[in-house]
Amino acid sequence: MTARTLTTWDIRKQDPLSIHDWGPEIDSMLEDPDDQRVVFNVDETDPRPFDAIFLGGGAAGRFGSAYMRALGGRQLIIDRWPFLGGSCPHNACVPHHLFSEAAAELMLARTFSGQYWFPDLEGKITSIKEMVDLFRAGRIAPHAIMNFQSKEQLDLEYILNAPGRIIDSHTVEVAGRVFHANNLILATGARPRPLDCPGADLHGVYTYESLVEDLDYEPGDTVVVIGGGKTAVEYGCFFQATGRRTIFVVRSQLLKLLEDGETRDYVITMMKEQGTEIWEDSLLTEVHNDGSGKVKGVTVSTPNGTEYVETDFVFHGLGEIPNSEMAADALGVKLNDDGTIVVNPQMQTSVPNVYAIGDLIGTPMEMFKARKSGMYASRHIMGEDIHYEFNEFPDFLHTHYEVSWFGIGEEEARERYGEVTIIKMPPDSEDGWEVALPATDRMMLYAFAKPRMSGFQKLIIASESRRVVGAHHVGAGARDAFQYLFQLYRKGLTIDQLAEMDELFLNPTHFIQLSRLRAGNQNLRDL
Amino acid sequence: MTARTLTTWDIRKQDPLSIHDWGPEIDSMLEDPDDQRVVFNVDETDPRPFDAIFLGGGAAGRFGSAYMRALGGRQLIIDRWPFLGGSCPHNACVPHHLFSEAAAELMLARTFSGQYWFPDLEGKITSIKEMVDLFRAGRIAPHAIMNFQSKEQLDLEYILNAPGRIIDSHTVEVAGRVFHANNLILATGARPRPLDCPGADLHGVYTYESLVEDLDYEPGDTVVVIGGGKTAVEYGCFFQATGRRTIFVVRSQLLKLLEDGETRDYVITMMKEQGTEIWEDSLLTEVHNDGSGKVKGVTVSTPNGTEYVETDFVFHGLGEIPNSEMAADALGVKLNDDGTIVVNPQMQTSVPNVYAIGDLIGTPMEMFKARKSGMYASRHIMGEDIHYEFNEFPDFLHTHYEVSWFGIGEEEARERYGEVTIIKMPPDSEDGWEVALPATDRMMLYAFAKPRMSGFQKLIIASESRRVVGAHHVGAGARDAFQYLFQLYRKGLTIDQLAEMDELFLNPTHFIQLSRLRAGNQNLRDL
Repeated sequence: MTARTLTTWDIRKQDPLSIHDWGPEIDSMLEDPDDQRVVFNVDETDPRPFDAIFLGGGAAGRFGSAYMRALGGRQLIIDRWPFLGGSCPHNACVPHHLFSEAAAELMLARTFSGQYWFPDLEGKITSIKEMVDLFRAGRIAPHAIMNFQSKEQLDLEYILNAPGRIIDSHTVEVAGRVFHANNLILATGARPRPLDCPGADLHGVYTYESLVEDLDYEPGDTVVVIGGGKTAVEYGCFFQATGRRTIFVVRSQLLKLLEDGETRDYVITMMKEQGTEIWEDSLLTEVHNDGSGKVKGVTVSTPNGTEYVETDFVFHGLGEIPNSEMAADALGVKLNDDGTIVVNPQMQTSVPNVYAIGDLIGTPMEMFKARKSGMYASRHIMGEDIHYEFNEFPDFLHTHYEVSWFGIGEEEARERYGEVTIIKMPPDSEDGWEVALPATDRMMLYAFAKPRMSGFQKLIIASESRRVVGAHHVGAGARDAFQYLFQLYRKGLTIDQLAEMDELFLNPTHFIQLSRLRAGNQNLRDL
Repeated sequence: MTARTLTTWDIRKQDPLSIHDWGPEIDSMLEDPDDQRVVFNVDETDPRPFDAIFLGGGAAGRFGSAYMRALGGRQLIIDRWPFLGGSCPHNACVPHHLFSEAAAELMLARTFSGQYWFPDLEGKITSIKEMVDLFRAGRIAPHAIMNFQSKEQLDLEYILNAPGRIIDSHTVEVAGRVFHANNLILATGARPRPLDCPGADLHGVYTYESLVEDLDYEPGDTVVVIGGGKTAVEYGCFFQATGRRTIFVVRSQLLKLLEDGETRDYVITMMKEQGTEIWEDSLLTEVHNDGSGKVKGVTVSTPNGTEYVETDFVFHGLGEIPNSEMAADALGVKLNDDGTIVVNPQMQTSVPNVYAIGDLIGTPMEMFKARKSGMYASRHIMGEDIHYEFNEFPDFLHTHYEVSWFGIGEEEARERYGEVTIIKMPPDSEDGWEVALPATDRMMLYAFAKPRMSGFQKLIIASESRRVVGAHHVGAGARDAFQYLFQLYRKGLTIDQLAEMDELFLNPTHFIQLSRLRAGNQNLRDL
């Protein structure tokens, strides 16, 4: 706890706060060091005990709270930040969507540079800092919505802008006051894993978090990105799209998480064609100081020897470390080797009446799991017989494209099912990817002028059962579909069922119409 | 039939034709008046009779053929054009996707004119003709794919680049040869309804078809669009986005097909904020001749009197007329009052062994119905006991945005179900639409800089059954989802099932997460 002077801002004592009321208040609490208010939204007239205190009001804590409240329970969220919603809209998953949109738009603008209405971007570098500043200024708006919605629409109780301290499994201290609850739900999230090499702390080395919080200069013309997973690729493609030389330094292989080889090949080929450099089996060994505490270059150990790269901007995306220390120290909750908290399918930790949810309990550190784990903890506390495991789910990432998938890749499907039918676009032909399909919104200019850039998609079907066992898509506008298509897949979706659906042509996934071209075959054939 | 000299190009007598082989051949047959080849792809060694001749190889005929072939039947497509796929990729539904992408990109570029990497478009008009030319040059590629796929992958038999003439219910003549089949399937499509007023034939008056085929000049700074349905709006928004004054002249109301009032209000408000002028209850009474056969202006009768508008470019989208005349004359198939062919749920016309499919049988003149009606006709012919009706389906259109929907609007839901729960973004609040949600890819720049432009979405739930009864979305990237979400809706989708799904955040439809915030409530509440 900091030793600052706290004042209580009891928001129940005033009229409802609108979304626009909240904006400047949150901004002031975040930016003005003299604004030390604790946002206090507790119904002190309610004689009921709290069914749970949620320590952390991010996606997990807020959705868990909403569900508990909806079920008739009483909850209290305590969060160190002056807003609900946690890191996602503040510096984690939301900004990358803005940057990935910029990457997609910049790729389009560069592809058609000087043609149609597009500006001449030949050789031009666009600003990283402007986009970061746009995000930083704009993020107050989603924060305001979360606080508004949580109070006015969801009737949640919360204390914000003050860190909670665990006293025991029923008790948390915050801002000098002590609160008791029947249960404690840990939802303190995770933080970026630090870079472990000399010079890692220099000015000019960023994570997704510090990029948004601290970037105070316009990076030069070369970017070094450390890591080969989602975060590294998402931010790295944005940096590349701004026109900078961008080198990915990857300990093993880039985007190993893409299991279908052909899809991965398309994704990486397109990254390379944009100019991205990918150094695999490579290790950053040192970040060099320019003498004033700023980065001037990096040394990378590669399979071809040691390389020095001159740069003032290093970004690393090396995974997450759970914020589990306080709970381990104060309560002795059992941890996994990676520091995540051990929970059972009821989200219960090793300590009675203590639950853990969200990024704290490990991968996947995705929004759906955070929110649903919160929802399930609340349902369990409110007496429901529940069981939540998250071993299969749809997934996505951004390069300059959206990449979406579920199920397995072709290689694994052949191993598991023997006979497999592949339905894909572009079709297998001697012309390979030089074909103006798939086509759909945001891929039409490519389809008509640069066909190989118009995407790739693939449906994998176990021939005997005729069931879809994997779906993979590179393009735009299909991610949302994968959420719902995944539900149909879990219910046993077959090629015959797909053939019966009503496509909204030109649909980003061509799966329905392509299936219809083959579903009549008793013995399925590739397309 | 024209009196041209025909030569037969028997494509079975040569090696497989690749996609790239097909391109220049189709281009030559389309563009070179001396190239009078008939594309002949009939297996004359096959002793089996044809199960069906498909007169027309558009979406309906081609998909019907593919299904028949897959079921083991033998089919023959006859089409007047040198490619399969019909009007959709040639001049109907595909080009509007390119133009709608241009509209969306231009709206973005104009909104951020001179900021970030966007060009200064202030007061600038961009080319309509360049986009039309891009489409016209590029459409050969999808045509080539259709011909390739239909022959090499789907094993279809077809005769192209020669109109078929119906002789009787089993017999068609084409290019001087006569073919017999057990069944005849009519799939000759529809054409734009002509404009009915003086001057309608002047140079400068276009439909979606003639725009692509004939536009030979750069339109001036004012466009008059006649009609208030999908086609008029889709093309009109593109014209507006190029920077031209664009006036919609609508006999009754614009976009009456959007049944949810609030969604329609958002859509039309955003069109108006882009500068679109909408003249409802108005009628084009005359197109004026500049003396050389070109349009110089129009007269419009409006509720406020008669207006003259100076323009050299009029576009009308007034619906479709079925190409049913030949079938009516030759076979006497029964027609509806609007000229569409009467069919039963087995796609059978009034004449034995004659089926009709696609746009010929009436609304909805959408791709899914064309393709599925073809598939069902084939299944019926091949002995399956089928029944196809298309009374409920998901739907979409483009303004500068994608607009997707299924089910009913809020007004009808309240009438039908009494208690209704609304889940929507932006939320109801005193700030209305000035809220940075919904947000997702292609809406992020708006969400952070121009929030009211970031879209609108709404889920309508019958409170008692907890079932979704309508879904409405304005934005980008949700259309594909509506295809699959519609399937779940047809299976009885509830708010509770939505709350259990795994969202891919930031998902274009926020339906899953918003439902999760309310699903815990026994008595549902709006959000």
